[in-house]
Amino acid sequence: MFPGPLGLSLAGRALERGLWSLAAVDIRRFARDRHGTVDDTPFGGGAGMVMRPDILSDAIAAVQAPGRPTIYFSPRGRPFDQARARALAAGPGVTLVCGRFEGIDERVIEAHGLEEVSVGDVVLSGGEIAALVALDACVRLLPGVVGAAASLTEESFEEGLLEYPLYTRPATWTGPDGVERAVPEILQTGHHAKIAAWRRAKAEEITRQRRPDLWARHVAARRGD
Amino acid sequence: MFPGPLGLSLAGRALERGLWSLAAVDIRRFARDRHGTVDDTPFGGGAGMVMRPDILSDAIAAVQAPGRPTIYFSPRGRPFDQARARALAAGPGVTLVCGRFEGIDERVIEAHGLEEVSVGDVVLSGGEIAALVALDACVRLLPGVVGAAASLTEESFEEGLLEYPLYTRPATWTGPDGVERAVPEILQTGHHAKIAAWRRAKAEEITRQRRPDLWARHVAARRGD
Repeated sequence: MFPGPLGLSLAGRALERGLWSLAAVDIRRFARDRHGTVDDTPFGGGAGMVMRPDILSDAIAAVQAPGRPTIYFSPRGRPFDQARARALAAGPGVTLVCGRFEGIDERVIEAHGLEEVSVGDVVLSGGEIAALVALDACVRLLPGVVGAAASLTEESFEEGLLEYPLYTRPATWTGPDGVERAVPEILQTGHHAKIAAWRRAKAEEITRQRRPDLWARHVAARRGD
Repeated sequence: MFPGPLGLSLAGRALERGLWSLAAVDIRRFARDRHGTVDDTPFGGGAGMVMRPDILSDAIAAVQAPGRPTIYFSPRGRPFDQARARALAAGPGVTLVCGRFEGIDERVIEAHGLEEVSVGDVVLSGGEIAALVALDACVRLLPGVVGAAASLTEESFEEGLLEYPLYTRPATWTGPDGVERAVPEILQTGHHAKIAAWRRAKAEEITRQRRPDLWARHVAARRGD
């Protein structure tokens, strides 16, 4: 699972170069029987299995470090976002807890002060793929991973706006629908200030139309609320 | 990348059993030069590279099928959620477009009517990990993948509520903080109606506290708005 797909991209090359490191811990190693059992049926009945508090707690205790946040991926958590990714990337590291089965015993969340984080209002078969999302978002922000050039996407996100449209060659292209589409003229003028203003207006327009929630937050931040 | 981590879980076994199938298409195959170039610099300047419309369009056209949605993963998209996962799992399949570099040329989105979908307000190094999130969420909903038993988590999500707390053995557990925590008594009574009511109340309480947005939608749905 780890580094899994991350090993095949920028994050993988950065891992090889030692720009970040990863220690995957198999929770089964902390089981108390020879079958490696880590789960049991839920109190109160119902389908699915729940991860035992004692075993999971031992696994977390083995890797949890003071000052390092410990995140548990769950649909009940606070939605993961670029601000959290930036804070984690600037911090001393993170412990990521990936649940399996129906979920984990609530008492582990309390006892370890786990930070519940969600990667969308969606049910996954385990926390591992959510962890890959968080790792990818954080690792690409580490110094030296993406390179010196600032990313356009981040510039846009910095201000809580969605990205403006991107265009590259060919300048005129006919799609499979038979429609000929040209790159907006302004982008071919070389007039930097006008291009910046156009991009800004587009980013604002797209954010307003698609994500009224982000737009409201952006406007509030601009007003200094 | 594909099936990647999915191959190691329920989805992987379901793939072997033929409950779903996956065809990964390398966009580089559609490049027009011997270097396999698929990107170029953005019109208007700026950092990063943009995927060319002509090459990406050819790759999409090679796999896009009538009646099957074509999703492009982008932070500008509509947030992916359990309702979309359910609709996709019930449908005839899906084409997933994974961008790399700074993003893709806007004209491809228009010409192919791509559905933009987001897995959170976060910048990833590519669409592949977002695709893994969507695939995992959809595949576990396919008949026969998780098994006959309904998942507790889904029951909760069906109504737009976050999940109530889960508990398993041991009934009393002392955490690393020295605090002894017992499973709530109600869950040990075997009184099904009372347990259901307790879980419901907890799910509502957690949703109200943590996600006012989901709670407002849930209340509106209950009122039949």
